[in-house]
Amino acid sequence: MDKIKKTIAKIEKIDYSLVKKTQNRLDNLTKPQGSLGKLEELAKLIVGITGKENPILKNKVIFTLAADHGVTEEKVSAYPKEVTAQMVYNFLSGGAGINVLAQHVGARVVVVDMGVAEKIRVPKIKVQNFKDKKIGYGTKNMTKGPAMTKEEAIKSIETGIEVFESEFKRGIDIIGTGDMGIGNTTASSAITSVITERPVQDVTGRGTGIDEQTLSKKINVIKKAIRINRPNPKDAIDVLAKVGGFEIGGLAGVILAAAANRIPLVIDGFISGAAALIAYKLEPKVKDYMIAAHRSQELGHRAILEFIGLRPLLDLDLRLGEGTGAALAVGIAEASIKVLTQMATFQSASVSERIK
Amino acid sequence: MDKIKKTIAKIEKIDYSLVKKTQNRLDNLTKPQGSLGKLEELAKLIVGITGKENPILKNKVIFTLAADHGVTEEKVSAYPKEVTAQMVYNFLSGGAGINVLAQHVGARVVVVDMGVAEKIRVPKIKVQNFKDKKIGYGTKNMTKGPAMTKEEAIKSIETGIEVFESEFKRGIDIIGTGDMGIGNTTASSAITSVITERPVQDVTGRGTGIDEQTLSKKINVIKKAIRINRPNPKDAIDVLAKVGGFEIGGLAGVILAAAANRIPLVIDGFISGAAALIAYKLEPKVKDYMIAAHRSQELGHRAILEFIGLRPLLDLDLRLGEGTGAALAVGIAEASIKVLTQMATFQSASVSERIK
Repeated sequence: MDKIKKTIAKIEKIDYSLVKKTQNRLDNLTKPQGSLGKLEELAKLIVGITGKENPILKNKVIFTLAADHGVTEEKVSAYPKEVTAQMVYNFLSGGAGINVLAQHVGARVVVVDMGVAEKIRVPKIKVQNFKDKKIGYGTKNMTKGPAMTKEEAIKSIETGIEVFESEFKRGIDIIGTGDMGIGNTTASSAITSVITERPVQDVTGRGTGIDEQTLSKKINVIKKAIRINRPNPKDAIDVLAKVGGFEIGGLAGVILAAAANRIPLVIDGFISGAAALIAYKLEPKVKDYMIAAHRSQELGHRAILEFIGLRPLLDLDLRLGEGTGAALAVGIAEASIKVLTQMATFQSASVSERIK
Repeated sequence: MDKIKKTIAKIEKIDYSLVKKTQNRLDNLTKPQGSLGKLEELAKLIVGITGKENPILKNKVIFTLAADHGVTEEKVSAYPKEVTAQMVYNFLSGGAGINVLAQHVGARVVVVDMGVAEKIRVPKIKVQNFKDKKIGYGTKNMTKGPAMTKEEAIKSIETGIEVFESEFKRGIDIIGTGDMGIGNTTASSAITSVITERPVQDVTGRGTGIDEQTLSKKINVIKKAIRINRPNPKDAIDVLAKVGGFEIGGLAGVILAAAANRIPLVIDGFISGAAALIAYKLEPKVKDYMIAAHRSQELGHRAILEFIGLRPLLDLDLRLGEGTGAALAVGIAEASIKVLTQMATFQSASVSERIK
């Protein structure tokens, strides 16, 4: 718990005086004031987060954390559980959605095994950076007791912090969060229902594409898990332990560590959102460092965005996870900083200002 | 008029059989079916437009067309009319928003003087390709008669076709449209009101940022222009001549020529939307080639999107024009094609398919 406490203690308020100063700078660029909308908001936010008047977003990193979920025993998913490990191999060989989209925006992907249910044998030819941080071979079935112990929940967050810190040494200017784990929309809906105090059916969706019947079973499974475990909405670690997942805890750690190091952090979709909820409950100041990438098609995502108070950048009907939406949003964030740092001013370009 | 007719005659239906085939391919990639939402729709559309199963979007071009508007005499703008020429110089030296965002997505910008009210003296060091195609030194004040003659309207569209065709020889895989012209939201609102048959006040906004009083004057100016000129909503050339602009006609030509050559075309915001309305009225088939970049903050833009039946990709509160929204959307379009052509299939990556 010490590492979590130390990390949280390092999270400062963002630099609002610099945000204000940056608005003045944006207003002097050769465009009508405010006409670049969310790009301007984003540029100001990134300046405030980094504390740098001219941030450079060169080192872009997507953290894609993978783990399995015991609750898949209840047959709540459209895909078999082996897919988690198979997709990790796909990430490592560069064939997944996140590989393609991260490369498109010039980001590197860090793949982390937080608790996949089988041993990952790293292939000789691997494209991506891989970290074996397995906490267990999947969580336990949360309808029969807690998904993990309190110690494992703490360890998953601390592991996320360590993963960020070791990668930070290689250089990071902005991060995106991503996930892989068959069954993890079930855990995320449970976390969302408990923390936002909304009914399970209002925050539970079709995940990778289940039918009506499976959806209704999934809702009952989540209700049962909450009834049996009674997670305390005020205690994020308790919620994570009882109905969460190793990758979700890991992402919460990544989020806290990025904020502690003044690195802008782009939250992907629903699973990353559940991790953001855990991080936010542990330290509300982390909110100012969050950039919501997109509005996921997954039902519970809206509840998360409203609870934390985030407005997503993109609305592309994505529901893949892995960090795919975050990668696209990292590209938009980079564009916003280029606008701030590369556009001419009215004076430098000899353009007349508006009529008074 | 011959060139317009010939171009229109070349516009074919897009290849729907290939669109269907591409959906099957997308469904075999390692992701839940449909989980990349609008990226999948976009990839299919681009395949159907180009007729290529594996399109490559290498040569990306933003056409930024500039012209002045006689209606600025009525003081409907927040910026003085000299800004049109000043911004053309800014485009040529690389300091404008479109320069930064086009470069971000790897697109080249083609700047065209369609009718700026002063002679553009091309600087020795110019960053961008420039074409002098001036039809006149700005349009006439449309509150006192037609903005241009019928011949000028036809010439503006034909010039747009020529501009596209000459640039097409250098290689074009996808285009974005862009505009510059103080006063051109006034012309665009007039076009939108006439063609969509909506009241002027429902399609007139604040342009570069006018106050309440100027907005109400702007609405009256547009109403007067329509009353005096009586443009025929069924005749797009008549509408363009009476209440349009040279850059708007030029963009309509670029749009028609891109469709005639099976090139995906990304429509920027409100001004480009008014040009799209003109092109769509001339030949409704052009719609299938259109990708709406974003939902502009400018009021009339929604009416255009609804009238043509387009759903915008991005919603970033932009209202700058120049092609800035189109540039960002071109980046998303490229991402969609990379997803289609670079992701692994379930078979190639040995990933289990969904449970039947």
